[in-house]
Amino acid sequence: MSSTDETRFPVEEASSTDETRFPVEEASSTDETRGTDTVTLDQLPLREDLRGRSPYGAPQLDVPIRLNTNENPYPPPPELVEDVTAAVREVAAGLHRYPDRDAVALRRDLAAYLSVSTRVPLTERHVWAANGSNEVLQQILQAFGGPGRSALGFEPSYSMHPIIAAGTRTDWVPTPRRDDFTLDTERAARIVADRRPDVVFVTSPNNPTGGSIPLDELETVLRAAPGIVVVDEAYAEFSSQLSAVNLLDAYPAKLIVSRTMSKAFAFAGGRLGYLAAAPAVVDALQLVRLPYHLSLLTQAAARAALRHADQTLASVAKLAAERDRVAEALQGLGFSPVPSDANFILFGRFADATASWQAYVDRGVLIRDVGIEGHLRVTIGTPEENDAFLEASKEVPR
Amino acid sequence: MSSTDETRFPVEEASSTDETRFPVEEASSTDETRGTDTVTLDQLPLREDLRGRSPYGAPQLDVPIRLNTNENPYPPPPELVEDVTAAVREVAAGLHRYPDRDAVALRRDLAAYLSVSTRVPLTERHVWAANGSNEVLQQILQAFGGPGRSALGFEPSYSMHPIIAAGTRTDWVPTPRRDDFTLDTERAARIVADRRPDVVFVTSPNNPTGGSIPLDELETVLRAAPGIVVVDEAYAEFSSQLSAVNLLDAYPAKLIVSRTMSKAFAFAGGRLGYLAAAPAVVDALQLVRLPYHLSLLTQAAARAALRHADQTLASVAKLAAERDRVAEALQGLGFSPVPSDANFILFGRFADATASWQAYVDRGVLIRDVGIEGHLRVTIGTPEENDAFLEASKEVPR
Repeated sequence: MSSTDETRFPVEEASSTDETRFPVEEASSTDETRGTDTVTLDQLPLREDLRGRSPYGAPQLDVPIRLNTNENPYPPPPELVEDVTAAVREVAAGLHRYPDRDAVALRRDLAAYLSVSTRVPLTERHVWAANGSNEVLQQILQAFGGPGRSALGFEPSYSMHPIIAAGTRTDWVPTPRRDDFTLDTERAARIVADRRPDVVFVTSPNNPTGGSIPLDELETVLRAAPGIVVVDEAYAEFSSQLSAVNLLDAYPAKLIVSRTMSKAFAFAGGRLGYLAAAPAVVDALQLVRLPYHLSLLTQAAARAALRHADQTLASVAKLAAERDRVAEALQGLGFSPVPSDANFILFGRFADATASWQAYVDRGVLIRDVGIEGHLRVTIGTPEENDAFLEASKEVPR
Repeated sequence: MSSTDETRFPVEEASSTDETRFPVEEASSTDETRGTDTVTLDQLPLREDLRGRSPYGAPQLDVPIRLNTNENPYPPPPELVEDVTAAVREVAAGLHRYPDRDAVALRRDLAAYLSVSTRVPLTERHVWAANGSNEVLQQILQAFGGPGRSALGFEPSYSMHPIIAAGTRTDWVPTPRRDDFTLDTERAARIVADRRPDVVFVTSPNNPTGGSIPLDELETVLRAAPGIVVVDEAYAEFSSQLSAVNLLDAYPAKLIVSRTMSKAFAFAGGRLGYLAAAPAVVDALQLVRLPYHLSLLTQAAARAALRHADQTLASVAKLAAERDRVAEALQGLGFSPVPSDANFILFGRFADATASWQAYVDRGVLIRDVGIEGHLRVTIGTPEENDAFLEASKEVPR
């Protein structure tokens, strides 16, 4: 580590000719009124469809108990921290060079994990990765959606799907689930056959409602779809259902299964999403990906994290057990939890969900107002965090 | 670091009920013929405008001397490697949590660097960052370009500009430079006033030709532009011209200055691009960015690298001197190097640039065929690398 002196910018020596100091310009601009600060968003030539919108994202509040973004509450084990650190130290000496543009080694490791956990043999040719599954989904819509094309989703579901559709100018076709939030796949198939969307999103387990879809029901939708079907399996490790990866060989020109290391893998901070599909789909995504999108550090750190999959994913069973305990306790308190196959529970009813959300915050518990009337979503945390949430649940207004 | 046993996937214990092992599914699929591998790109419902295209990117060849992607040839100093490693160790314990979505601390550090090096006071409100300047540019076109809008560039220039325009479905308006690759800004202003593009790209220093544009000439273009002007300053640290950051207060609703840590900062592997603009522009980009696009590791590592700006950027003067030496030597060999203000030189003439490129590769020197007839581009490396390049230059066919 360098001393303070070495890390100071050379303000005083600005016009020095010492060539070991980086160039400082002989510049101007000491205006009292900053021109930059006078312009408002309204005065910019922003696209019309973005006007009046707000940035996506849950409030990042400093509250003791954070059960709002479906993170894994268990920190990485010390061995993983050490291994990530060692991996970064090893590659950091090469930071002046661009990373492997195709991230082959990382994709091979992801394929190995998927092959073992789903028992479907996959290679790096079947796997693609990006900075979070959001970037994976954006690339899918850049390749298979876009202007003049449409994407269909069964709502309520992951709210980034329509946002990424908008970001890629893909028409969004919202289609309702049943009142109990399950998916009527027969009806879904009819709507898909009728509307003929270029891309269909099926989230399983579904976020924010928690239910997952058996493979035979998924096939009903796959058979009806004229184009791409993205099965968003961000929460697959928590689910009792088989992965849609099992259907890849049967629907190779249609099916894409997206995954993330943000949830079960406890790697939300590392930002690594991936997908499994036919190699031709991976070829297609290479046409739209930004070159060198995955940094040297991301590739190295994700590979290190994958080496500790056993340890990290050991939390899955604990979280599933806690989920069932919390659901039962909520029921005992008179709430109606929606049956969940993931690491979160949607529950109600509240007369005013937003007011109740604030009441939880006031008690130091941050959960999520997902915009479903009368409902809130809680992420399953540690037993202590869940107890605190359940205590608060006794007090908040219904 | 964990033992080999701990990092093995539990293949054998697949159906074990040991809850500390991650769930392995009871799946099927042992087909001999893989359905996934029978599908070709042609059979996928790819967007028509992507058909027949190839992925962007220079060949990543294993050649002793790599002077093809304008990287800084000097590896990060050991102090930087240690500091990046220490920063990663510190944040890795929080990898299970999402990173700061707004990357405020990193943006503050970038603003501090820009403020000192350009002497234009900037804060985090004036700075935005993403995974490489490509992602910054993509976000700019998502906010201010897109379907029904157009972007104009002066070619030859950075070849990702039209590719990112295509990726965001922004119409691309190519406009030629003079035959000597300089920009006729009076003519450029007339064309901009006439075509009225929503976004204008001005690359200064220009890649792959190397020349930069004085601020007064840049203002000629800025005054004519009806919308956004992106000054791409990826190579600004190598330039003798003042940064366009100096014009932000005068053109706050028009000007965006993009930068990268990939070149002078020797941080290509870290993937960190950024921009300076009016705070309202940053607000606009927040409407299109994917949430949590910058990982915990990227934010921490880039901040660590910025603490070593003095050390890293000490290479800039060395590289500029080497650039001038190489240009002179090329001239001595009978080549015509284009005057460069960056860390690379475009030079000619070759009867068959592609054949000559291969002749360099055959001699262990990887440079870049940028598709300009009769020309090749060489990145300035270490003195030894440059000598090897010059030796090869004596031998390759003209």
